This record gives sequence, structure tokens and C-alpha cells, in this order.
Amino acid sequence: MTVLGNPLGIQLLAEIWECNEDKLNDMKCLEEMMTRAANKAGAEIRKVVFHRFEPQGISGVVVISESHLTIHTWPELAYAAVDIFTCGEVVDPWDALESIIQDLNAEDAHVIEISRGMKNLRRSKKKITNTIGQADTK
Amino acid sequence: MTVLGNPLGIQLLAEIWECNEDKLNDMKCLEEMMTRAANKAGAEIRKVVFHRFEPQGISGVVVISESHLTIHTWPELAYAAVDIFTCGEVVDPWDALESIIQDLNAEDAHVIEISRGMKNLRRSKKKITNTIGQADTK
Repeated sequence: MTVLGNPLGIQLLAEIWECNEDKLNDMKCLEEMMTRAANKAGAEIRKVVFHRFEPQGISGVVVISESHLTIHTWPELAYAAVDIFTCGEVVDPWDALESIIQDLNAEDAHVIEISRGMKNLRRSKKKITNTIGQADTK
Repeated sequence: MTVLGNPLGIQLLAEIWECNEDKLNDMKCLEEMMTRAANKAGAEIRKVVFHRFEPQGISGVVVISESHLTIHTWPELAYAAVDIFTCGEVVDPWDALESIIQDLNAEDAHVIEISRGMKNLRRSKKKITNTIGQADTK
């Protein structure tokens, strides 16, 4: 029996280290990578926005019908901060994340998974933070 | 003495409930609200992308030089999921979040704060998840 009910969405926050540094500074490559990840997860892409910073680093967002994917890169640290937020039960954010980690040739990644919008928990008057604070490491 | 060093960024994940439902379905209002929040925090806006879903609900992203702000709304639940991710020491994400909570006329909000990119922790070979799992409730 599920007491708390289902969340509206699941969000992955990924700390991705030891990536291919050239890819982290290649905007076209990252844009293709993030849209490919969204497609692999079965998401419906609505908007794609990327921005390159000087002297290095790229920020990118893919807005999907099911919420969003974001990436911010620090090529000088071989590091990327990636978020994947999906709603509904069809799209699995882990599929998108695995695609990104593979495409970045990353040798190290640590992830937390957070439930968003636990409405049943809200109705029970318990603090939502009890739920969104749960962190699963993969 | 700071053993772990400073993170590259701070991310707030806000569960905002009991919002003004009309505002949650008003794309122009939300776009103005999110850009105002970014400006109040002193962020530099790079890209603004919003999308309206049928029959209701809006997703929006403000890409800033310091990372991003996102919002996804469920007007039927009077709920918004808001993320604010800022890098550097100038922009305070709490300033942006307080502006959003006020603008949504929200009566309830719960937030976790997560450190992103703890490079010193990485170098010490400790698991980054030990750090990004820390959740401060405000």
C-alpha cells in the first residue's frame, strides 16, 4: 500500500566529473547530446536553448512536455552539473541521464533523485521536505 | 576553517503550494515574475523561454550568466515547482526565491538547498553525494 501516493515528478541532480573536456566546450555537441538524451527517454521536446560563455563553459536547457533537462559545464574542471526533471509515468529520467553520462565519456558521476509535488503528503499536513529530502545514490 | 571548500554553485528546489491559481496559468505574468526575480537577485539574464500547455500549466526557464531559474506550474493544484541555480558569490538565490514566493501569493513553501560542484571534496576522493545530499530547510 502506498501511503504517500505518487509524486508529480522525479528530478535527478547529477554531478558528472572527469568528462571529455572538449565536448564540455562544444555547444553544438552538447545541444545534440541533450536532445538525444531527451529523445532516448521518450520525452517530447518543446524548446532548446543553449548559451556559450567566454572564455569557456556552456549552459543549455531543453524544455520538454514532461518538464526539463539542463546542463552547465566547467571544461576547466572536466565537470558538468546536469538536472533532469520529468513528470508522468512514461518518461524515465534515468534513461536520459545514462545517455548523457555515456556521451560525455564521464568516468565519475554521482546522482540524487528527488520527488517533486507530493500532493498526498501535502494533504496529510506533513512537511513536504520530509519527502523531497530523500536522496537515493546510484 | 573550511575543510570542504566552496561549491561552484547553490541550487534551491522549492515546492510552492497554495499559490494564486490564475497567476500559475498566466504565461506573461510568470515570465515577468521570473525575470524580476532574476533581476532582484542581481543575475544577468541571457535567455528567457516559456511554454504553455493545454489545457493548463506553464513551463519556463530563465538562463542567467550564473546558471538558471526554472518554473513548472500545476494551476489545478495551486502548485509550482521552482528551481534556482546560481554560481559565484554575488547572486543570492534566496533573493530570487523570496521574490517568486511573494509574487505567487503563496501561503506555503518548502525548500531544500543543495551545493553543486564541490571540487575540493572531489579531490579528497570522498563521495560528492555526501555533500549534495545535505538539505537545509528554510
